[in-house]
Amino acid sequence: MTDFYNTRILLEPNEIPKEWVNIVPDLPAPMTPLINPMDGKPAPPELAFAIFPKECVLQEVSQEPTIQIPKELRELYVRSYRPTPLHRAYGLEKELGIEGEDIKIFYKNESVSPTGSHKPNTALAQAYYSKRDGVDELITETGAGQWGSALSYGCNLFDIKCTVYMVRASFIQKPGRKILMRAFNGQVHASPSKLTDSGKYYYEQDPDHPGSLGIAISEAVEHSMRSEKSRYSLGSVVNFVLLHQTIIGQEVKAQLQKVNAKPDVLVGCMGGGSNLGGLMIPFAKDKLDGKYPDLEIVGVEPRACPSVNKGEYRWDYGDSAKKAPILKMYTLGHNFIPSPIHSGGLRYHGMAPIISILAKKKIMSSVMHHQTEVIGSGLLFAKTEGILPAPEAAHAIKEAIDQALRAKENSEKKTIVFCLSGHGFFDLLAYKEYMVGNLVDYELPNVEIQKALSAPDMPSIDETRF
Amino acid sequence: MTDFYNTRILLEPNEIPKEWVNIVPDLPAPMTPLINPMDGKPAPPELAFAIFPKECVLQEVSQEPTIQIPKELRELYVRSYRPTPLHRAYGLEKELGIEGEDIKIFYKNESVSPTGSHKPNTALAQAYYSKRDGVDELITETGAGQWGSALSYGCNLFDIKCTVYMVRASFIQKPGRKILMRAFNGQVHASPSKLTDSGKYYYEQDPDHPGSLGIAISEAVEHSMRSEKSRYSLGSVVNFVLLHQTIIGQEVKAQLQKVNAKPDVLVGCMGGGSNLGGLMIPFAKDKLDGKYPDLEIVGVEPRACPSVNKGEYRWDYGDSAKKAPILKMYTLGHNFIPSPIHSGGLRYHGMAPIISILAKKKIMSSVMHHQTEVIGSGLLFAKTEGILPAPEAAHAIKEAIDQALRAKENSEKKTIVFCLSGHGFFDLLAYKEYMVGNLVDYELPNVEIQKALSAPDMPSIDETRF
Repeated sequence: MTDFYNTRILLEPNEIPKEWVNIVPDLPAPMTPLINPMDGKPAPPELAFAIFPKECVLQEVSQEPTIQIPKELRELYVRSYRPTPLHRAYGLEKELGIEGEDIKIFYKNESVSPTGSHKPNTALAQAYYSKRDGVDELITETGAGQWGSALSYGCNLFDIKCTVYMVRASFIQKPGRKILMRAFNGQVHASPSKLTDSGKYYYEQDPDHPGSLGIAISEAVEHSMRSEKSRYSLGSVVNFVLLHQTIIGQEVKAQLQKVNAKPDVLVGCMGGGSNLGGLMIPFAKDKLDGKYPDLEIVGVEPRACPSVNKGEYRWDYGDSAKKAPILKMYTLGHNFIPSPIHSGGLRYHGMAPIISILAKKKIMSSVMHHQTEVIGSGLLFAKTEGILPAPEAAHAIKEAIDQALRAKENSEKKTIVFCLSGHGFFDLLAYKEYMVGNLVDYELPNVEIQKALSAPDMPSIDETRF
Repeated sequence: MTDFYNTRILLEPNEIPKEWVNIVPDLPAPMTPLINPMDGKPAPPELAFAIFPKECVLQEVSQEPTIQIPKELRELYVRSYRPTPLHRAYGLEKELGIEGEDIKIFYKNESVSPTGSHKPNTALAQAYYSKRDGVDELITETGAGQWGSALSYGCNLFDIKCTVYMVRASFIQKPGRKILMRAFNGQVHASPSKLTDSGKYYYEQDPDHPGSLGIAISEAVEHSMRSEKSRYSLGSVVNFVLLHQTIIGQEVKAQLQKVNAKPDVLVGCMGGGSNLGGLMIPFAKDKLDGKYPDLEIVGVEPRACPSVNKGEYRWDYGDSAKKAPILKMYTLGHNFIPSPIHSGGLRYHGMAPIISILAKKKIMSSVMHHQTEVIGSGLLFAKTEGILPAPEAAHAIKEAIDQALRAKENSEKKTIVFCLSGHGFFDLLAYKEYMVGNLVDYELPNVEIQKALSAPDMPSIDETRF
């Protein structure tokens, strides 16, 4: 007999985590530094401080096992949307024929944030530190607009300016996200723009240039270097962003304890790595400590952009335009242009260094799925759980379903926990195309990857010097 | 000093209300019956039972002061999204310069439901009773799509068919809502359709006929009469819908008690009346009992469709096509076609009989606002509270702001509570038009109202016979 009062497991406002979990000191290989793209040497602190909010730079290189969440920030999380619910997926379980207590599926619902995804977790933190340190403007790039709206939201609450360079193709095709950013006082510019040298170069060739994330990053970084009081803001990949997202996994731990459950498998989608990182880091730390040896951690990538599954672990630029720091990570090459799948948030050529080390050392595994099976799983989830998921989140759903069905076939007991990174109210076109049979899968152009990886165009980096 | 842990006041799942509040036996004037549009006589039970789910008909005429919410339904509310948060609007208060404890603004956040509004509160109840009584299909009409998606969502959870006749103009202009309904297994037809005699009449004249809510209602009612196992479902106006929505006000009562607050003013938007009704009925009952004599209740209408403010209290058809029951209510006339404001949910010519009686007897008051000031208030709310409201909900926000500023000017103490009926993620065009200065206000065409009211085209109704 299902106890429906246990289907949405909540935490009280005062149960919100007090600290973030830093996995860097526990990693099975040393964290590599951010490399200055100009000279191939580790970026000196003064350069990093000029680009990013100061506290974030300190967190990026911190060796502390935990970092306190400032009280004011915790209060703001509470005021805004946290703690978020953990749901038991009874509807989905019933559909899959696994009713009972042998195979359980839980999902953490990050779609309840005001911009509809987990991104405000770090946006609020970055805006908070920026305000505290006298920064008056944060600049970023955005593709589909999920990160741009989260940062606009965060900056607006702290009354600092937010400037977003939005890839022009999306700027035109996705007016909804643009309006949402403007509703939160974000200044949104189509990129390439006339506002930066990096943008002007392309804009003057073609004022209708569709743009790319690479160009938008270059514009944002260049813009942020202009003033002493402005900084560049990143929504994924780097250590401090994953750190801020660990509030997700910390809450999940507390919520699972309330129903005496313990996960066997953690599943999350991977674009830059902040969603999976946020869910799994608090658990991965226990695994590295030997306290949780059998825990499986599974990252899910789109088949059209499988950085960990098909890329190389190597040094590469964070952006195609070679303005952002060089990172050691799984990468498809900074010139790799992913096919136009609907999961805009997963179309990144690289992967967070933290995730890359954990994958390289086999602390976690990674899988790939095609977008039709992903969107199909998303639709099944909507029908059974009542929440229409973002295409990114549907990657985790597809894998959780596969895991559950495999456990059923093998008569295994298994508790599966995945992160629902966001809702799909801005992604209805993907569902429409699926329903009418127009959604296509993209085979991975291996030749393109090889080409992108064989042209690294990189300063020489001497690892013996760190 | 703001206590942010008290900014989102939550209830535990097991604190969800156990009963709905029925105000009918306490009304200051007797509730009038639903009249059969064919003969002008009170609809006999067998006719009502053929149209609506049986339990809903019994609730419509119940004289019980409270009606128990079935356990299974309460569990489903919990599983899905209830209890919903009550927020203290600290951000908005700060913006208005009323920080402190003299003037407080609270809002009940119904936007957190899976379809983004309060509508699932009754959709789940109607689907539950239909399933229990062996009904296998619910049929309804929808304009902008908010009600159609809520009913699709509810029916899907109970595995019964949902058929929605959607006004063709919206069907074409608002593909998002249509996709959402289909994601929840709803069968959506553009109206007028070829599927009913009522629709065929218009469809055969013009297959691209833009349709109207009146025609869509006729199609839905006709369709529902076809099978013993199908019923017509309504999303507002009638007593049982307002009854189901009283879960809102019951939760608000419990939440305000947690922070020792007591409302001086309750504010809600009014289209058919279910949102305001749901918020205020539990409090209005106390007012009628003499326990809460000074409580103000304010309904907010769009200036383009002010049924209570500018209409007449009289008998009128529930729909333009004269297929639905005749009700005694405030009405602008069933032929009145409101201007195309963005608040599709408030474009109804009549008003719930319960609200109409309370307004007529001055237990509550009503105000009107223009859509530019409404959308402007919605944008201010987004910037200060971080939630982009539906245009319907922004009517309540505008009035709450006015009330707060008036109290400030008069140095009054005042606690204002309003209902945020839904989010605006599907209404971004309204905000865009406001931002670029293209949003227009519609002056009320008095001549049109007079015309609509002077042509009642109604069977004679003998009130002495009830």
